[in-house]
Amino acid sequence: MSNGLDNLREKVDELNLQLLQIINERAKLVQEIGKTKEAQGVNRYDPVRERKMLDEIIANNDGPFETSTLQHIFKEIFKAGLELQKDDHRKALLV
Amino acid sequence: MSNGLDNLREKVDELNLQLLQIINERAKLVQEIGKTKEAQGVNRYDPVRERKMLDEIIANNDGPFETSTLQHIFKEIFKAGLELQKDDHRKALLV
Repeated sequence: MSNGLDNLREKVDELNLQLLQIINERAKLVQEIGKTKEAQGVNRYDPVRERKMLDEIIANNDGPFETSTLQHIFKEIFKAGLELQKDDHRKALLV
Repeated sequence: MSNGLDNLREKVDELNLQLLQIINERAKLVQEIGKTKEAQGVNRYDPVRERKMLDEIIANNDGPFETSTLQHIFKEIFKAGLELQKDDHRKALLV
């Protein structure tokens, strides 16, 4: 029985690292988007775009997580991305 | 230039759906773990295991997100998983 638990935990560990990799890959894209927008003089935060992303995520949700839970997790990921863009902007100003 | 932005956004959309898939896959494993633990009479919340998972994630972090940001995001994912186990438990009691 404990072996079954170890097995499940190993799989969770693998998924954690996959999530880590994709979250950081996404962060790099968000940084690039920030630079592109900065060059265009466009505002970084775009609530319409964020709503669109959430809607697409929700439309593709087969569970077990509920919509509200996924919205919460993804909003945290979006917020972290926005913070990263702001940091890049501050650093650019300091150069 | 706007084309570049559209391109980057398309890639972000793809990663969002990959994240969604892995987050839900992880949730299914967490549900199974919850059932296994319940059968063994073990407590669901295990702070030592949670710390171990965070340490492994941090050890594998190449950025751009900082350790503190990743800890925050993953803690939200862990918390959501724990809530799911609790819901399952409540439903089991109602049967």
